[in-house]
Amino acid sequence: MFAISIDPVSRPAARAARERIDQLTKPVGSLGRLEDLAERLASIAGGTPPSNYERRAVLVGAGDHGVTAEGVSAYPSEVTPQMVGAFLGGFAAINALARAARAEVYVADFGIASALPDHPRLLQHATARGTKNFAREPAMTQAQVDAALRAGVAAFESVRRATGCELLALGDMGIGNTTSAAAVICALLDVEPEDIAGRGTGVDDAGFARKLAAIRAGVARTRTADWRSVASEVGGFEILGLAGALLGAAKARVPVVLDGFIVAAAALLAQRIAPESIDYCIASHRSRERGHEIALRGLGLVPLFDLELCLGEASGAALALPVVEAAARMIREMKTFAEAGVATAADPARA
Amino acid sequence: MFAISIDPVSRPAARAARERIDQLTKPVGSLGRLEDLAERLASIAGGTPPSNYERRAVLVGAGDHGVTAEGVSAYPSEVTPQMVGAFLGGFAAINALARAARAEVYVADFGIASALPDHPRLLQHATARGTKNFAREPAMTQAQVDAALRAGVAAFESVRRATGCELLALGDMGIGNTTSAAAVICALLDVEPEDIAGRGTGVDDAGFARKLAAIRAGVARTRTADWRSVASEVGGFEILGLAGALLGAAKARVPVVLDGFIVAAAALLAQRIAPESIDYCIASHRSRERGHEIALRGLGLVPLFDLELCLGEASGAALALPVVEAAARMIREMKTFAEAGVATAADPARA
Repeated sequence: MFAISIDPVSRPAARAARERIDQLTKPVGSLGRLEDLAERLASIAGGTPPSNYERRAVLVGAGDHGVTAEGVSAYPSEVTPQMVGAFLGGFAAINALARAARAEVYVADFGIASALPDHPRLLQHATARGTKNFAREPAMTQAQVDAALRAGVAAFESVRRATGCELLALGDMGIGNTTSAAAVICALLDVEPEDIAGRGTGVDDAGFARKLAAIRAGVARTRTADWRSVASEVGGFEILGLAGALLGAAKARVPVVLDGFIVAAAALLAQRIAPESIDYCIASHRSRERGHEIALRGLGLVPLFDLELCLGEASGAALALPVVEAAARMIREMKTFAEAGVATAADPARA
Repeated sequence: MFAISIDPVSRPAARAARERIDQLTKPVGSLGRLEDLAERLASIAGGTPPSNYERRAVLVGAGDHGVTAEGVSAYPSEVTPQMVGAFLGGFAAINALARAARAEVYVADFGIASALPDHPRLLQHATARGTKNFAREPAMTQAQVDAALRAGVAAFESVRRATGCELLALGDMGIGNTTSAAAVICALLDVEPEDIAGRGTGVDDAGFARKLAAIRAGVARTRTADWRSVASEVGGFEILGLAGALLGAAKARVPVVLDGFIVAAAALLAQRIAPESIDYCIASHRSRERGHEIALRGLGLVPLFDLELCLGEASGAALALPVVEAAARMIREMKTFAEAGVATAADPARA
């Protein structure tokens, strides 16, 4: 049985960070959410962040979904390995956005339907060649749930060895995975498919009706209180792999920047496995995908921005990496009013 | 009399960019506002952006305000040169955030009350040593309005010569300048001080009442339809300098990333001087300062994010620079479905 132990983040380090932030040469609170982010980074580091998080990696978890047989996606499953090829070739959206964020891109095959040739940036961690069609039967076995979570931890550890990764961005690729993610979120949060499921990559009305029916059929077999039941009935290999990578990063005290809807489903699973893991997470953006906001509320996270994205691939998470660096630099590089010799609002020199 | 001629941005280039963006390997529209930003960059460049905007500069315009004699700010005027010293020393908020954004920081003295010693990153462009107290008399003469606008153009040109600047972030420093900016916005948009003025750096209730009274007194003397009257009655040297820098950058077809409330007031003046200049602008963030949203609506701009900032110094604009780079890289580095050999939603191979 998969299990992992994660240290709580440091509340004293968070308090000490806030005290220093309040003395920096700016009006108290004037850097808003950047200050909250710096406080969180300090709580994760257990003190002032030791770096500007310049060694940073993007991990895109990929997998295929048997439920695509129901006609729930606008794209065929062949697109999953084609897009992984684009990521490895360096010409997909995440490559462009990761370059802008000075991050290296790795892809983990957690369960693509067809095996891919080796590549230096492809981590071979497939548990099986795609899930079963969860509208008809369990997506995977309990043993596969455990294997997929372990694969995720191993993928994070590979990325860390390769890059010295101090900051991890998580994203997804998998045709059909908004259907699986919506089912996971519905089951874990006990909400209706209509409140969670969206159009994914742009499915039409008939496909959307099939998507809702598939989610309803799968969720009906889950026991909400039991994350293992949810994972095996309606999960996906990349969703579990991403949950494992999140948990592995949290165990290593590496901050994890979450992308959108699929990664939120993975984070909700991680939360059930080890609740303290979510304190290591930073929500990058609010996606256009319908249920993302509800999933974020379930995680207790507030996203940094809303650029009306709905792509996946870690695209939103990559855009947030420079914001994390900025928060670290704020607390590491700014001087206090006293250190800088600048008059404060309460200064007797006040005009 | 100050005058400047600015080319319109290219609508055909914007249309061509959108056509290409719609063919890139991602669902149409899935990169949301990043796509709109790339389209704007193309319209400014007159074609595909020629670079990733890696030569980027932050220009902080600084000035002092006679209206501080009314007790409208939580901080004394001495803080203006002290903070400029912090910017030049490299340990203020904007320095940390600019490093995260890989941008060089320059400061223009457009009218600080006390002259500052020379420094390689300090541009000496003071029109006068602070404005007059606009609650009692015009802030500056008409000749000073023209001089301050010219100083702004010259400051941009200096930054461009020094850095080859392809992307400019504008910010402000000046104790009392939210009072001047609020008055400029009220006068130009014909709105009430209560709808525009906020607490600035954190003035108390009595100071806020004095701030409103000062704005009302100054605005009462302006002729709304005449930007020259608004600028001389209630303007600030850094506000006019920033308007000039914006106009200079637009003339050079360099995209301008706007910071918060003060820069919005400057942009509203630039809009009156040369309306097409605003098409060269990108609004970075929505500030906590009360009237910023109304000013942005007046400019017809929608900010990229809201991190609850209210600092100035170009802090929000700096955070947006990597987003601009990401948008440029998206359109420059991504392949189309056809180029990449990836199946599309409409592909006959669809499952």
